[in-house]
Formats: sequence, C-alpha cells, structure tokens
Amino acid sequence: MTQGSAPFSREEYRRRITKSRAAMVKAGLDVIFVTDPSNQAWLTGYDGWSFYVHQGVILGMEGDPVWWGRHMDSIGAGRTVWMDDAHIKGYGDEYIQSTVMHPMEDLAKHLDALGFAKARIGVEMENYYYSAKAHAVLGSEMPEAKLIDATALVNWQRLVKSDSEITFIRKAAQITEKIIATAIEHAAPGVRKNDLVADIMHAGITGVGDDWGDYPAIVPLTPSGLDATAAHLTWSGAPMRQNEATFFELSGCFRRYHAPLSRTVYLGTPPDEMRKAEAAQLEGIAAGLEAAVAGNRTCDIANAFMDVLAKHGIKRQGRIGYPIGLSYPPDWGERTASIRVEDKTVLEPGMTFHFMPALWMDTWGLETTETILICADGGAEPLCNVERKLFVKD
Amino acid sequence: MTQGSAPFSREEYRRRITKSRAAMVKAGLDVIFVTDPSNQAWLTGYDGWSFYVHQGVILGMEGDPVWWGRHMDSIGAGRTVWMDDAHIKGYGDEYIQSTVMHPMEDLAKHLDALGFAKARIGVEMENYYYSAKAHAVLGSEMPEAKLIDATALVNWQRLVKSDSEITFIRKAAQITEKIIATAIEHAAPGVRKNDLVADIMHAGITGVGDDWGDYPAIVPLTPSGLDATAAHLTWSGAPMRQNEATFFELSGCFRRYHAPLSRTVYLGTPPDEMRKAEAAQLEGIAAGLEAAVAGNRTCDIANAFMDVLAKHGIKRQGRIGYPIGLSYPPDWGERTASIRVEDKTVLEPGMTFHFMPALWMDTWGLETTETILICADGGAEPLCNVERKLFVKD
Repeated sequence: MTQGSAPFSREEYRRRITKSRAAMVKAGLDVIFVTDPSNQAWLTGYDGWSFYVHQGVILGMEGDPVWWGRHMDSIGAGRTVWMDDAHIKGYGDEYIQSTVMHPMEDLAKHLDALGFAKARIGVEMENYYYSAKAHAVLGSEMPEAKLIDATALVNWQRLVKSDSEITFIRKAAQITEKIIATAIEHAAPGVRKNDLVADIMHAGITGVGDDWGDYPAIVPLTPSGLDATAAHLTWSGAPMRQNEATFFELSGCFRRYHAPLSRTVYLGTPPDEMRKAEAAQLEGIAAGLEAAVAGNRTCDIANAFMDVLAKHGIKRQGRIGYPIGLSYPPDWGERTASIRVEDKTVLEPGMTFHFMPALWMDTWGLETTETILICADGGAEPLCNVERKLFVKD
Repeated sequence: MTQGSAPFSREEYRRRITKSRAAMVKAGLDVIFVTDPSNQAWLTGYDGWSFYVHQGVILGMEGDPVWWGRHMDSIGAGRTVWMDDAHIKGYGDEYIQSTVMHPMEDLAKHLDALGFAKARIGVEMENYYYSAKAHAVLGSEMPEAKLIDATALVNWQRLVKSDSEITFIRKAAQITEKIIATAIEHAAPGVRKNDLVADIMHAGITGVGDDWGDYPAIVPLTPSGLDATAAHLTWSGAPMRQNEATFFELSGCFRRYHAPLSRTVYLGTPPDEMRKAEAAQLEGIAAGLEAAVAGNRTCDIANAFMDVLAKHGIKRQGRIGYPIGLSYPPDWGERTASIRVEDKTVLEPGMTFHFMPALWMDTWGLETTETILICADGGAEPLCNVERKLFVKD
C-alpha cells in the first residue's frame, strides 16, 4: 500500500535519522518518541491533519522508525511515509477522547514489544501534541522505563537545511511573493478585510505554476490601525480605512515548507513618526542582514539591529526572529534558536530564519520582515524578492 | 483600551462563568487555569492566533476572570476581552521558547498574588496547549498548591448552546452551504485539487452577506480515490480524475463557531457497491436523526445508525460524531461527548453535533454528514440545507 509519496529521497531521510541518532547518543537516550508533527514529517514523510489525536514516531538506534497513531490515520500513513507497512501501527477508535482509556496505554504496549520496557525514552515535554496527561499515563504504564525530556532534540537537527529543503523553501518564497503582491494590490479604503484575506488565501493555495500551495501553519495576520499594535490578531469584516496602516504577516507554503514575510501598507499619507520609524527599521534590517553571516551568532544579528534603533531613539526589546522551514499549526517557527540578544547560536550556512524586527507602537504597527538564508560569506540572502519599504497608497 | 469587541453580551459571559463555577464546586476546585483557546474565548472573548505560546485564563470563585499571556498578546487581549485592563496580565518576551526560563514561573507568581498559593487548582492536563513541561514547572513552582486534572471541565459547560450561540452556528451553516456548493460545482476531471481548495477557502472567508468568514479550525479535507480511504489527508496539486469519488469535509466559520458538513462527489458513473453503500448510509442517517432527540442518549444515535448498516451487511465501528461549536485549531470537535455505542450522554435541547457516519472502505470513501441541533421533540434539526446524497457528475 505504501505509495512512496514522501517528498524527499530515502537518502535524505536516512541522513536525518543518522543526525538524530547522534543527538540521541549524546543525550544518553535509547529511543525517542516524537510527537511534534513537523518532526514526524521530517523523519518519515507523514502528512495529514490528524495531529489533534495522539500519534507519533518511535525512533530507536536501529532499523526504520515506526509511525504510530489512530487506526484510521494509519491508512493515511500508508499513503505518505517512506517506511513499509510493518512500520505503521494503529490503535482503535475506542481510545479517542475516552475518559476511561488513553492512547498512551497502547503506545506503551508497542514500546514494550519493541524492547524498550526498561529503556531511556526521550519525550518532547514542551510540545503541543504531548499533553501533561499523556506524559503521566505513559510514565505509569512503563514503570521500569525512564522518561527523559528530549524537547527540541529533533528540531535542532532541522536547523541547517539540506539543499533539497532549501529548494522547497525557495518555492515557498515564490508563493510568498505572489501573496504579498496580492495583499498590497488589493488593499484599499472600503475593502473588507475578510475579502482581502480570501484573495490572499486563494493566491497562496493556487501557488505558482506547478508548485501548488499548501496550507501555512499560521493564518494570515492582517491587522489595521490600533489592532496592528497587537501582534497576533486575525481579521474581521471591517472595511479598510483611509489614514491607517495595515501589516500583512504572511507565508507561502510548499509541501509544508514556509517562507514568511511581512510588509506594511499605509492608505493615505503616513505621519512623520511612521516615516522615521521606517527609516530606522530599514537601516536596522540592512545592518542585521550584514551581521547574519556564518560564524557570527544569532545575538549579533539582534545587536546590529537594536544598535541602529537605539541610534534613532526607538526602544525595541524581545525576540526578532526564529528559524523556519517545515511546519504544522499552530506555529511556523522551529522553536530552537532565537534571534535575540540573549541567544548565542552560531550561524551556519544553510540555516533559514524569519528575521522579524517588527515595531509595535502605541497607536500603529510597522512590520517589515525577511526570510533569510545564512551563507558562507557576504551577508544573508533574503529569499523573497519584495521591495523593502513601507508601501503607501494615496 | 478595552474595545468590548467580545462577540457576546456581558450577561452571556456571566452565565458561562456561573455554570463553570458550579462545576468547579462539584469538582472541589478553588480556581481553574484554562489553556484551551476555545475555553478562553468562551469565558472572556479572547481571540488571536497566539495559542502557540503559553497563555490562559484564571477563573477563581469570585470576581472577573484574568487573562494571562505573552506581553505582546496582552495588547490583543485588551482589544478582544470584555474584562478591564486590570484583569489582563502579560509576561516578558525573555520567557518565549527559552531553555532557562519557563512562562509557568510567571504564572505561578500571579496565582500566588491572587491568593492561590495553597489552593486546589484545576488544570487541563489533556490539552494541546498545556504541555507536560508546563505542568511539571507549575507544580514545582507552587509546592503548596494541589494541581488537579480538570480536563474538559469548561468544555462540558459548552455542550448545551445558548440561543445566541445557535444563531452563530446557523450563520456558520449558511457559509458551509456556500462552500459545499462551490466544491460540488467546481469539481471536474482535470481540475487541480489545490485550485479547488483555493476556491473553497475563498468562498468560506468571503462569507455570506455581512456575515464574514473566519478561519475554520481544520483545513478543507478533500481526498480522492484511494486517498479517500484515509480520514485526514489534505490536498495536493494532482488533478481530479474521471471515475473517482472525492469527499469534501468542510466547515464554514462565523466568529469561531463551526457547522461542519461532508458530501461526496463522484465523477462518472459510481460502481454498484458505492450506490449500495450510499443507500445504506442515507437510511442510517435518517434513523440516526430520528433517534437524536432530547431524552435519548448519544449511543442511541450510534445504535440506530449501526443497526441499519448491519442490516445492509456493512461493518462500521468507531465514533460517528462529536459536539461542535466554538473552536480553534487543531480540532473543531469539543472533546466531551461522542456519538458512539459506548457513550451514554443524555441529549438536551440546544446541543449541536457533527453527526459524522462516514464510510471509509478498501478502495474508496463516502462521507455524508450533518451538523445537527437537538430539539425538544421530533428528530434533530440538520442546520445546513444541502441535498443529502452522493453527488454524481457524469
């Protein structure tokens, strides 16, 4: 039944497994149980909107990984993963949202059968799809095993992208260019925000040529005016208004790979303070891109940007970027390194980040961001080709 | 700063809080910390795509609830919740995805300050947004408190909908009618699946008249042929083909309220076995709707359907429905009652379910489902007006 529809070559998956196993050795683990849907997809190719029930990938030190999940989704696994059917395990529907049974009881049996009853088992304790309850049940079902926090162990292996992954991100970036252009072109006073979002989504899913669009891990963020002082509001049916800024934080998605980008549109003539912030932001981004070179650290990017802002008298704190690539809802960030002054991750060629130095002020927001690829020398390469400025429509 | 943009009246929120507090008393809890975004929205009106970081609502036995989350999202809280700013608490960006600090350290300080240092605190242990790590940190930060599993405590209060909630679900149902019609009309041999999904999303987000469309908690599920034997595959750029069935599992969304519906389209002349399954399914649905009346139990619906199927010689197991209403990704189900033979929940007027007796066979899938409202007498009311049949396009 296996269709081999996994998007990468066997060699690529083998390489990922080898990398992950090296990290497992370092962490003293015999096996990991991976619940993060992005990690599951990265290791096995599994793809489906089934992460709302318990499922995961078991990766020991030998042999192929095992995909485990709800029986009805094991059919979908058979159609998406690269392993054979012997490496797909399903549990019955009676476990689903039951108050008397828990899927982790079934998982424990499989781990036992695979010889992990007394193993050091890595679990992703800080993940949306590994609940406090799941952890408690798995622990009590496997009293002789040792459950060890392996949060982000696989995520860190995803930080440097392979050439084929970068190809996917470039395709996503082309879709991003298309949807940002759609947003900027269609924005006008009187246009209902939801109608604009409908056009953005349509442009993203139709994709570019043969590169069809997948669903991004975050829906379009498109707040205007005062709503744009907040970071994560979605949309409503209110019409766009003259003399307001709207930021668009959007990502194309190609086979689950992302390339987020933000641009801001002002309808009318922007106030001076916004123009000044724009100038500072653009200068800061240029400084950040220059600092985003292999051998430097993530904090160097943050400091380069913050220094420029301070020079312009603008206070900005917090995180201004994160790695991106393969992802599922609710987040397109990889949740490992951060671009911030406290983070010392050394940059390597092939890393990709959403460099995200947005400014949320008291009465407006200005988002101008780039998806960037770290290169061996020179500055970082922005993967989308979109003019970097505040877009003004008079 | 509070905008009062919460979609319901103060009285409605008060009613919800009173109901929740009664359940807290029954469970012996002094306070609950609610992480489920749907529960947060239901209690406070909070709405934003920020659930990928730790946030939640603190509800004690007195006073207004407190929304707690990332500082940058507390701005969005100020623009969406009905409480005043004193009931919105933010934590700093240095906590975000840090490996040395955890947001639950900040939450513990707030719970202490609110007088809950030694309280019996209900937490949602089986929830996407309350991680195993969050539970461990909160427990160690509050050594004198008792953390008690309160999974679905609030969800159960949501089971019977108020009149204003039913109005919202009816609006969502009208959007569902529109998107199902779009899917059926545009389906044709050679049409790329992603282009069809783009049209579906566009129709859903534009909405119906003044009722603008929100994002559904699950993306369109639209598998064809063998992919339709699996429950939760999304789409690709492959063209639709003659002599294949495609099921569409879709939901309109109005201000986070859902009304899911599935219909199946066959391009060509369906094989006899599919026609027979269709007849059995439709007869079973009619029997299920008749059994879905106040005073009966969820299992009565399941048994009524399964009996008809058995009569037709079709084996079907598992869950065939769940309550729906307010929801956020990754699931539009409410995760309380289930329509299945093991579930004994007594039906009450105002409950709404996605009655979901799909058939996934060896080589094809047939989904015909309804969003239904339980009424005082007579059978259940299907909220979408879409012809119930296998749609055939020759």
